[in-house]
Amino acid sequence: MNWLTSIRYRIGESELRERTAAFVEFMPEYYLEDLKVGDRFASAPYIVTEAAIIDFSREFDPQPLHLDAERAKETFLEGLTASGWHTAAITMRLFVTSDLNFVGGAIGLGVDELRWEVPVRPGDTLRLEMEIVQARPSKSMPSQGIVRIRNVMKNQNDEIVETLVATVLILRRQTV
Amino acid sequence: MNWLTSIRYRIGESELRERTAAFVEFMPEYYLEDLKVGDRFASAPYIVTEAAIIDFSREFDPQPLHLDAERAKETFLEGLTASGWHTAAITMRLFVTSDLNFVGGAIGLGVDELRWEVPVRPGDTLRLEMEIVQARPSKSMPSQGIVRIRNVMKNQNDEIVETLVATVLILRRQTV
Repeated sequence: MNWLTSIRYRIGESELRERTAAFVEFMPEYYLEDLKVGDRFASAPYIVTEAAIIDFSREFDPQPLHLDAERAKETFLEGLTASGWHTAAITMRLFVTSDLNFVGGAIGLGVDELRWEVPVRPGDTLRLEMEIVQARPSKSMPSQGIVRIRNVMKNQNDEIVETLVATVLILRRQTV
Repeated sequence: MNWLTSIRYRIGESELRERTAAFVEFMPEYYLEDLKVGDRFASAPYIVTEAAIIDFSREFDPQPLHLDAERAKETFLEGLTASGWHTAAITMRLFVTSDLNFVGGAIGLGVDELRWEVPVRPGDTLRLEMEIVQARPSKSMPSQGIVRIRNVMKNQNDEIVETLVATVLILRRQTV
């Protein structure tokens, strides 16, 4: 259990939410040169509530299978499920609040191979596993580096619910 | 301007939000057989506010460049920008509330080639353009079809801010 995780349990989720931005600033932060292919990181757990599923879906994915537990029973997925984009947004949250922090933050350039393998349902506890699969200097910007991160999101039964490969722009260490 | 777009202007965004799920049920809906490669669809406009950028980021992407307009000025992107995952979620909303509706909804299987090309900033007006790039029966499920949709999100200056290719599972027309 890392530093942020232990605080998360001590102060509770709602207060943490208010203070997350401040925490991020105090986390250990990496430059490109601090990372190598094969490095692995893991997130804190995150519980997905029915209310959160419905709130997100009302705003961003207003389909009955994500909005209405009763009507969702009649659909292909046989019950309420989170929007895939909700799971993707949770992935970002778990990435940002994990140990894998970058000096000055990470600029997301793109994502490949985003797959929703198993539906996320109310009460599920998600955890994110991250692995560096590429780390190289930018060709066009000498101060920047490109990192590719394979993300695997699992639920409480160790089922893989989502996978994706993110490409982000981070800073290089200035060696003068 | 389509039917939903004109209602959106008449009743206003906040009321529409409450009623979106109901609207979706009354839209024309497609089976696999109703779509062919090259078919194009367009969404209503969507205005991204500073408050929405900060709300989304506080929950899902708590980095200073998405949370704090003052501190964001010092970052690489020189000002507050929306989380890429916020733009992706707005893409889903504009897709679901567009004319491209499927009988029984669409089950998202995955996304490829998600690229954030130009930052989304407070006050931007986004529009989504969709094009069917593949439409075929599922090999394993005779009642289902697979559709691939190229999504291009543009801002008020016609700049492409995001592109992605979505793969969704939809129903086939039952021809007995």
